[in-house]
Amino acid sequence: MSISEFGLIEKYFIKKIQRGSVNRIGIGDDCALIDVPLGYELVITTDTMVEGVHFFSGADPRLLGQKLLAVNLSDLAAMGAEPTSVTLALTLREVNESWLKEFSEGFLGLANQFSVDLIGGDTTSGALILTVQAVGLVPKGRAMLRSSAQIDDFIFVTGNLGDAGLGFKIEKGNDCFSSDDALKKFHQPFPKINEGLAIRDCANSCIDISDGLASDLKHILKQSGVGAKLDWDKIPLSKGVKRYIDTTGDWQMPLSAGEDYELCFTVSPDKVDSIDIDCTHVGVIEAKAGLRIQRLGKTEELVVKGFEHFS
Amino acid sequence: MSISEFGLIEKYFIKKIQRGSVNRIGIGDDCALIDVPLGYELVITTDTMVEGVHFFSGADPRLLGQKLLAVNLSDLAAMGAEPTSVTLALTLREVNESWLKEFSEGFLGLANQFSVDLIGGDTTSGALILTVQAVGLVPKGRAMLRSSAQIDDFIFVTGNLGDAGLGFKIEKGNDCFSSDDALKKFHQPFPKINEGLAIRDCANSCIDISDGLASDLKHILKQSGVGAKLDWDKIPLSKGVKRYIDTTGDWQMPLSAGEDYELCFTVSPDKVDSIDIDCTHVGVIEAKAGLRIQRLGKTEELVVKGFEHFS
Repeated sequence: MSISEFGLIEKYFIKKIQRGSVNRIGIGDDCALIDVPLGYELVITTDTMVEGVHFFSGADPRLLGQKLLAVNLSDLAAMGAEPTSVTLALTLREVNESWLKEFSEGFLGLANQFSVDLIGGDTTSGALILTVQAVGLVPKGRAMLRSSAQIDDFIFVTGNLGDAGLGFKIEKGNDCFSSDDALKKFHQPFPKINEGLAIRDCANSCIDISDGLASDLKHILKQSGVGAKLDWDKIPLSKGVKRYIDTTGDWQMPLSAGEDYELCFTVSPDKVDSIDIDCTHVGVIEAKAGLRIQRLGKTEELVVKGFEHFS
Repeated sequence: MSISEFGLIEKYFIKKIQRGSVNRIGIGDDCALIDVPLGYELVITTDTMVEGVHFFSGADPRLLGQKLLAVNLSDLAAMGAEPTSVTLALTLREVNESWLKEFSEGFLGLANQFSVDLIGGDTTSGALILTVQAVGLVPKGRAMLRSSAQIDDFIFVTGNLGDAGLGFKIEKGNDCFSSDDALKKFHQPFPKINEGLAIRDCANSCIDISDGLASDLKHILKQSGVGAKLDWDKIPLSKGVKRYIDTTGDWQMPLSAGEDYELCFTVSPDKVDSIDIDCTHVGVIEAKAGLRIQRLGKTEELVVKGFEHFS
C-alpha cells in the first residue's frame, strides 16, 4: 500500500467525536471506550458486504459506503435503538484514494445524519469485503425483540415492499422496466431509526426486512411460537412494482425480494391507535403455526423463492 | 452453500450464554443486548485476518480460530479490560463442515477459557476473511491508554520478544532454524488478559505488541508526547531467538517482528514494587522525543524494518 494504514484512516475517517459523553475514546488506542448512560443497555450488530455477493463490482463508492452503514443501522432500528457508534473493518484490493474519499464521504455522511461516531476499525488488504459493527443504546428492557409477538397482534410494515428487489432487477440488466424510485431504494436504503424509536413503546415485536417480508416475518413467528396470515390486497406497493407484477405475474417478488430495509412489527389491537408513524396494516398474528396469505379469495401457505445472487 | 447460514451458525457456533447478566440477548435477534454493570465502561475493538496476508492458505482451522480470537482479546488486555462478548463476521470460500467444526472449536475453546460469549455475527461467501469484534468491561476511567506515559516511567514487557517472528520465518520455509517454542508462539499466541488486569492499577500506559516492540512503543511515545530509551541487554530473548541472532546478526528482529502479543507498559518509579506479574524492565521514558536503543556501549536511534507479508 502506498500510504500507511494509519495515514489512510487519519486522512479519510477520523472526525471529531460528536457524542463525547458516550464515546469517551475513539480511533487511536488499542480499543475504543463507551460509557453507557445509566438506565440504558447497549445494542450491537454486525453485517458484512462482499463484492460480487452484496454489491456489484465497480459499485459507486459513495453509495456503497452509505448502504454499508444503512444496513447495519437498520438492525439497530429493528430493536428500537438509538445508534451512537460504529467500527469499520475494511479489506481493500488496493489503495485508491479517490475511491476511499468517496466511500468515506458516503459512510460518514450518513453517520453524521444520526450523530454516529466512527470509533474504531481495521484496514487490511485482500478481496473487497466490508464489515461494520454498529452500536446503539436502548432503555433497559425496552428493546423490541423477535420473540415477543402475541396472538391477535396486527402486523405492520413501513414504506412499500419490493422496490429494492425491482431496483436490483433493473441494475442486473432487466431493461423491460425502469423506475428511479426502485433504483434509489436499492442503492440508498434509509435506515428506519426514527420509526423504530417511535414504535418502541407500542410494538410487541419487530424485525427489519432485509431478506424479504416472508423470510423475515418467519423469524418472528418461529421465535415467538406463533403463526400469521397476510392479506395480499393490503401489501403496500409502488406504481413501479405494481407494473412489474402486472407484466410478469410475479406477485411474490415484493414478499421475497430482499434489501427493502423497512420495518415489520406487530402491535396488540388495543395499542394500534397509539402508532404514530406512516405504516400499513398487512396481516395478523395467529395461534396456528406457519405463514399464510389471503389472495384472490383464497388463503394459502406462503412459499417463497430463495435469494438471488449478484455474481 | 449447502446448508443455510443460520443452520451453520446454529450447528457450530451457538452455545449457552455464560455471562447472562451482561449478555442479555445473544445470537438470534437483529442485534445482541449488553447490560453494562454500574461503574463500568465498555471496551471495544475489531481486527480482521485475511488469508494470504495474516495467515497462510491451508492454515490449521483450529489454530486459526484460536489465533483470530487471541489477537482481538490481546487488544482488550492492553486496556486492562475483562473480555465478555465477541461477534464474528466470517466470509468463507465454501461450506466445508470439517473446517468449520475445527475452526469453531479453536475459537470457542479459547472463548471458554475467559468465559467470553459469542453474541452475534454474519456469515457470507467470498474470499476467506475473518473479522472479530471483541467487547470487554473496565471500571470507569481506569482503562490503560497509550496516551498517558510519563517521563521517567520504567518500560516493561511481558514474556520474550521475537519468538513469533522466528516462528513465522520457520513456517515460511527457513530451514536453518527450528524451535517448537517459536512455532507455538506464532500459531498460538495467548492473550495477556490476566496480566493486563493485574497491572491496571499501577501502569501509566500500555499497548499490546502486535507489530513489534519498536513500532508499538512508538505509538505510546507519539500519543504521550514523550521519547524513550531501550537497553538492548535487557530485552528478554528465548534461546531460539538468541541462536537466530548469533547466526544471522539480525539483532533487530525481536524488536521489529510482529505477532508476539505480549504487553508493553510503563510504570512510574515509585510504583514499580507493586508490579505483581512476570515481566522485564527494558527501558525508560524520556522527555526527548524519539526512540533510542543502548547497545554495545553506544546509544543510537532505533530504526526498524517494515512488516513482512505472508503471501
